[in-house]
Amino acid sequence: MTTQAAKQASNVRFNGLDTPQLVQTVEAVKQDKSLAKFEFRARNQWIDGMVTRTSIQDFYGVGAEDKSRSKPFTLTSGEPPVLLGANEGAGAGEVLLHALASCVASTAVLHATARGIRIESIATELKGDVDLQGLLGLDPAVRPGYQKITVKMAIKADCSDTQLDELVQIVRGHSPMYDSISRPVPVLLERA
Amino acid sequence: MTTQAAKQASNVRFNGLDTPQLVQTVEAVKQDKSLAKFEFRARNQWIDGMVTRTSIQDFYGVGAEDKSRSKPFTLTSGEPPVLLGANEGAGAGEVLLHALASCVASTAVLHATARGIRIESIATELKGDVDLQGLLGLDPAVRPGYQKITVKMAIKADCSDTQLDELVQIVRGHSPMYDSISRPVPVLLERA
Repeated sequence: MTTQAAKQASNVRFNGLDTPQLVQTVEAVKQDKSLAKFEFRARNQWIDGMVTRTSIQDFYGVGAEDKSRSKPFTLTSGEPPVLLGANEGAGAGEVLLHALASCVASTAVLHATARGIRIESIATELKGDVDLQGLLGLDPAVRPGYQKITVKMAIKADCSDTQLDELVQIVRGHSPMYDSISRPVPVLLERA
Repeated sequence: MTTQAAKQASNVRFNGLDTPQLVQTVEAVKQDKSLAKFEFRARNQWIDGMVTRTSIQDFYGVGAEDKSRSKPFTLTSGEPPVLLGANEGAGAGEVLLHALASCVASTAVLHATARGIRIESIATELKGDVDLQGLLGLDPAVRPGYQKITVKMAIKADCSDTQLDELVQIVRGHSPMYDSISRPVPVLLERA
């Protein structure tokens, strides 16, 4: 990331971001790479049927345990009736799309800000194909997960279409959740 | 089957699941594989800074557009102060852990139910490592996404430890989000 544009852009907020803090963060990480290491965490409890609840509060990052959250975020997952639930919450597959959508948008905003591009709006539409035969174990040739995800991203900003194309290319290369879904992540699932 | 018998059958819940419906779903998919095809969807809007909002309502599955939700689920993402936000919601990386946690738990419950195993409790703890240098574009050798995710799953049920080990192995092979994160998913991100 070039911090030059961000330095020039403003010493206040740009795209809703504190640009001096963005510059400071980038400079601090350049000086001490260990500050870039984050560990995110979640605790989940099965409630009943297809309903579970996740608690999210603490994490490690920028060289310390974070203390900024006085209480946890509580997220409830459920499934619709055709998947044996009662719409108690968004389903796991839909939650993954939310993670991807929020990540590509905020990655775009972060890198736009670093380039001095002012974002007017970002709206994304996501679709993901799943074949239930994988989950149900009816056909070993069918993967349980998403077979394909499409993300249509409408961006309005004070720059050229070429620059917007470049910005989307940057998102493909730098969005943590785009990377986590499109490339394999080692997942170690074990009984506690 | 008489109406009354069907009503009695549909009252047979096990692990909070409607087991006759589970059997019916599996049989229906065996008869007509096209019923297994699902398309999940999400619409996201950037709000400001690192804040975005996702709306989740409609989807396609079991051969039809689903009409069971009268209003959408609305999920807000944000980031903590060290990531330039104000804790407006769980961050994208944490949301991905929620998707994974809820999926491995409900996949375990589904397959336990199919085997007649009664689940007493499931509690999972997840941790995921990210190096911010990837997102910030400071080192092309550092991936932007999760480098590793660990999931510790504590299960209590009316079966042997061996059966619990088998159940966890089934989850590794059949959980849609475990599969979507641990193996590559083609993600087509394009400007609308």
